[in-house]
Amino acid sequence: MPLGERPGDKSESRYCGVETEFDDDIPNLLTSNLSFGAFDFVVAPMMDPSYRPSLVHKNSSGSVALPFAGSDLVLSPSQWSRHVVGKISSWIDLDSEDEILRADSETTLKQEISWASHLSLQACLLPAPKGKSCGNYARCVNQILQNLNNMQLWLRIPLVKSEDDSMDVNSDNLIDSWEIWNSFRLLCEHHSHLSIALDILTSLPSANSLGRWFGESVRAAIINTDAFLTNARGYPCLSKRHQKLITGFFNHSVQIVISGKLVHRLPKGNTAVASNSDGNNVDGGQGHPLRPYLDYIAYLYQRMDPLPEQERFELGYRDFLQSPLQPLMDNLEAQTYETFEKDTVKYIQYQRAVCKALLDKVPEKEALTTTTVLMVVGAGRGPLVRASLQAAEETGRKLRVYAVEKNPNAVVTLHGLVKLEGWENIVTIISCDMRHWDAPEKADILVSELLGSFGDNELSPECLDGAQRFLKQDGISIPSSYTSFIQPVTASKLYNDVKSHKDVVHFETAYVVKLHNVARLAPTQPVFTFTHPNHSTERSNDRHKKLRFEMPNDTGSAMVHGFAGYFDATLYKDIHLGIEPSTATPNMFSWFAIFFPLRTPICLHPGSSLEVHFWRCSGPTKVWYEWGVTSPTASPIHNSNGRSYWVGL
Amino acid sequence: MPLGERPGDKSESRYCGVETEFDDDIPNLLTSNLSFGAFDFVVAPMMDPSYRPSLVHKNSSGSVALPFAGSDLVLSPSQWSRHVVGKISSWIDLDSEDEILRADSETTLKQEISWASHLSLQACLLPAPKGKSCGNYARCVNQILQNLNNMQLWLRIPLVKSEDDSMDVNSDNLIDSWEIWNSFRLLCEHHSHLSIALDILTSLPSANSLGRWFGESVRAAIINTDAFLTNARGYPCLSKRHQKLITGFFNHSVQIVISGKLVHRLPKGNTAVASNSDGNNVDGGQGHPLRPYLDYIAYLYQRMDPLPEQERFELGYRDFLQSPLQPLMDNLEAQTYETFEKDTVKYIQYQRAVCKALLDKVPEKEALTTTTVLMVVGAGRGPLVRASLQAAEETGRKLRVYAVEKNPNAVVTLHGLVKLEGWENIVTIISCDMRHWDAPEKADILVSELLGSFGDNELSPECLDGAQRFLKQDGISIPSSYTSFIQPVTASKLYNDVKSHKDVVHFETAYVVKLHNVARLAPTQPVFTFTHPNHSTERSNDRHKKLRFEMPNDTGSAMVHGFAGYFDATLYKDIHLGIEPSTATPNMFSWFAIFFPLRTPICLHPGSSLEVHFWRCSGPTKVWYEWGVTSPTASPIHNSNGRSYWVGL
Repeated sequence: MPLGERPGDKSESRYCGVETEFDDDIPNLLTSNLSFGAFDFVVAPMMDPSYRPSLVHKNSSGSVALPFAGSDLVLSPSQWSRHVVGKISSWIDLDSEDEILRADSETTLKQEISWASHLSLQACLLPAPKGKSCGNYARCVNQILQNLNNMQLWLRIPLVKSEDDSMDVNSDNLIDSWEIWNSFRLLCEHHSHLSIALDILTSLPSANSLGRWFGESVRAAIINTDAFLTNARGYPCLSKRHQKLITGFFNHSVQIVISGKLVHRLPKGNTAVASNSDGNNVDGGQGHPLRPYLDYIAYLYQRMDPLPEQERFELGYRDFLQSPLQPLMDNLEAQTYETFEKDTVKYIQYQRAVCKALLDKVPEKEALTTTTVLMVVGAGRGPLVRASLQAAEETGRKLRVYAVEKNPNAVVTLHGLVKLEGWENIVTIISCDMRHWDAPEKADILVSELLGSFGDNELSPECLDGAQRFLKQDGISIPSSYTSFIQPVTASKLYNDVKSHKDVVHFETAYVVKLHNVARLAPTQPVFTFTHPNHSTERSNDRHKKLRFEMPNDTGSAMVHGFAGYFDATLYKDIHLGIEPSTATPNMFSWFAIFFPLRTPICLHPGSSLEVHFWRCSGPTKVWYEWGVTSPTASPIHNSNGRSYWVGL
Repeated sequence: MPLGERPGDKSESRYCGVETEFDDDIPNLLTSNLSFGAFDFVVAPMMDPSYRPSLVHKNSSGSVALPFAGSDLVLSPSQWSRHVVGKISSWIDLDSEDEILRADSETTLKQEISWASHLSLQACLLPAPKGKSCGNYARCVNQILQNLNNMQLWLRIPLVKSEDDSMDVNSDNLIDSWEIWNSFRLLCEHHSHLSIALDILTSLPSANSLGRWFGESVRAAIINTDAFLTNARGYPCLSKRHQKLITGFFNHSVQIVISGKLVHRLPKGNTAVASNSDGNNVDGGQGHPLRPYLDYIAYLYQRMDPLPEQERFELGYRDFLQSPLQPLMDNLEAQTYETFEKDTVKYIQYQRAVCKALLDKVPEKEALTTTTVLMVVGAGRGPLVRASLQAAEETGRKLRVYAVEKNPNAVVTLHGLVKLEGWENIVTIISCDMRHWDAPEKADILVSELLGSFGDNELSPECLDGAQRFLKQDGISIPSSYTSFIQPVTASKLYNDVKSHKDVVHFETAYVVKLHNVARLAPTQPVFTFTHPNHSTERSNDRHKKLRFEMPNDTGSAMVHGFAGYFDATLYKDIHLGIEPSTATPNMFSWFAIFFPLRTPICLHPGSSLEVHFWRCSGPTKVWYEWGVTSPTASPIHNSNGRSYWVGL
């Protein structure tokens, strides 16, 4: 049964499995491991571990059945697929120097996968590559992947590769097991059915090194009972760092699998006392010998806070690629306005900014005599008009408001709002593109919300440049400036989703996305800044920025699948608004991050730095970004001339 | 006029150019440089070098014409395109820290390229990147390349980048200028219109370092007059190493361009004495001041041996990708037989092998009494039958020959041949696939020519395994063994040709190709060996080989676009036959090399080695290769399950 009921959480990580020995009696194996609310699934060997194809050929003349555990009929199809993950024989070694072992391994691997497919299992666990070299193993798995339907292959990867684990006598230094995974998946071309089962032991690498895995397709974490400590009462527990890691797995849909034998002597009287030292058997029906470990994992699960409402709302958007809006070219729909208008945090920030600006513009003694001209450019259905009027009320300043909006459909709503609220004497509605409006007077304050996830990507600079004509020389723009930020990320899920389109266009497009299964490899750095009003004579909104990212030394190597982009805007003086992670405005939901993919992921090794260029370019009818990596190796320039992705003027 | 008439040579490298200063009077520039049989073309600046867009904007109010040299009307369209290569202003620096210089550079570059396109010039010379970083320069050139029709862009690259040349104050070690080229072309995605003009100065890097360039798209070599030495008579000449390099350029269609001033004081009485030290002017119509350098280059050209006939014949095949034959699945055409039968060298080797085998099989004293049974399997139109009968005659041994051929069309020719030559009593023709023939007796000698460029790639192993049934236990197979070889190569032309198909299939196909513009980066290594007859019980023709290539230390970095493949076959004892470069049989033309591409080229840095896997795999109806690089970075496994390229059984 599931580890617990966490409100809002419907992810796979509620289910916990157990790794078992070979057992020909599969129904009994399920009963002993799954009964009495114990585990949800077993990770069980499918083939007699003593089987070797090369021995069969010599000793038997007739055709004998392969020594699989049970037969397809001993369980129902749904039992097979819901409760059994096939464990591929762990003795196989496709990169062995021993030619017979190599051939036996390939034959067995193919037979077992074929059997697992026959049973419609959801996943098979592939043993970890034995040495540093995995070329032939990957070649064989890659062949299998080409013909696989829905089954996932979980490649077992030790989180820490201990030295004696390595069969490669030539290994002169410790192997970063991520490198093995990386080679394997590159050889298999990031195949979406190839994922990772991490082996968790006592020692853990650094937090940065662990962090890399959250951008990879980890499906399971196999925790050995050896990794558990003993608490004061004699029960198994995990170190703080292990606990944090497990919680991370829960939050990233990684299923936990308990492995190993009972190694804790429990206090007397506990129902789960093991009757033998053999681990994986039931002790006379009293309960599962590994129950204390399962209970502890369930405790960790149940201890987590429920998902905040915003997170729950955004669950369906996690790592889902969306095309950015084109609000200048297209008109937004009512539903879109509806959603964004609910972001109260954002409008409170705007209201605070307008308050400050009004207080700066109009001294207390002029409050009753001076009327400030405030123009909302891109008024939509009116939320900024409301925020501005509330600011006026709050500060006791008098306002004359112009609400300029190019979408005639939103203008309909605006008229209704003004009538409903009785703002007719204060608010003038202008149905016009701000770039072409012939204003009857100039504004003291220009308020706009034209920012995209990457700040300028919805063409706020071009719009506000166009509106600046009717801002007084000493007028204020809210926002007064905004800056975009990027950071390199591992994002294998996003990479695979982009790749699935099989064209260059999708690799040269920026996507709006709720980043979740992503590893952020270095702190963000600022890219482009725009300031308003801009009175310089030779202004251009084209930009070029070269950035150099250094990964923390203890991260190890990592794969850069692209760049996560954010923005931060200064609305007025100290009032800011943004999604740059280190300074993000809390509880604001109007913007997800933006993701710039790389056509070929770039592997960063420790000590090497990543040099990337971003350009903002423009033509008569469009604005676009180009990007490219120049170090450690040069990538193609992405989106040359805006051929794949652009924003229309 | 051309440098000379070299029989068989029609390449561009016959034409020699000269780099000039800016001259507004283009017709005069042409007259002074091209008259009297001097140079064939000029590399001339198109824009007044004092022009800066940022100054124009400030100083002029109206619209003035850009200060181009001349106008489009001063030359005829064909003069422009035949005699002028546009030289882009050398002051441009698109990666400067100075924002105004950067903007001026981009504007000027685009204006000049636009002008050159307007004139339909064949090529423009782009100045060398100023520093180590060339991201913005590449981005801008890449934008230009997207919209270019037929014009080539020659990026100037110094063969040796001297330290003071570098504008980058942070450069801590000498820059390998190949790295700059490599970054630039990766950023521009190996664009086929982007090529190289190498700047040749006094010092030359190592031969291995120079060799890399022959796999790149070098179009011109600009030789500065400073690079010339002075011979005993006071005339300019070049060092032996320079001479060898220039000859290499001639052989690879690289055009020579002379640059610089007259720096040699010629002996009195010479017509080409310079009347001033200013270099690029005519000395009163007497001749071109740089004439002595041109004459020396022409001397080097004329000194070359004419192309051997075989080379001349193969000229049209150079670097041209051909799909390998499928002689087992398809029947060859008469024309194909015709071509291959002309390869006398090959059949002489076969005849020598059969002679040796006959002498070994039949002692002198049994020569008249013993008849040897020789079967030609895959007899085609009979060349091996003839070679075998000639061997019998030469050794005085008696033969009974079976000619087995599956192609019914070739069998028609065979019958004609036997009748014509009167071989009816000696030769039996069998119209049958050797794998299915029910032979009336067993053979002493089995002769075949089933080898492809990669040895086993036309399925010789499978065919001979099938024929082995009717070879006596002590019988001889000619060939008795064969081995394939590979080596990593730079081959940008081949890479671009494969890439032009815009699919994965072509990148996972091996091609037969006459390799020419290719840099061989490391000595060949053996891949798969097959031996016949093969009496082992557990024989399989599947193979797996892991190879590790080390580049010579003085090569520098280089790009691996794929692998060149060859074979060597032992016909019998010491008689071999093959195309592996170090042991290739001279004057044999039946086989070009084979080329296995890489989907993403891999850059090899000094000291790093290249680990590559090749697999020979088989299924019920086909045989295929898979290949993949595992170090320095992992590539995808190419051609998984033979999805893109296979040979039918």
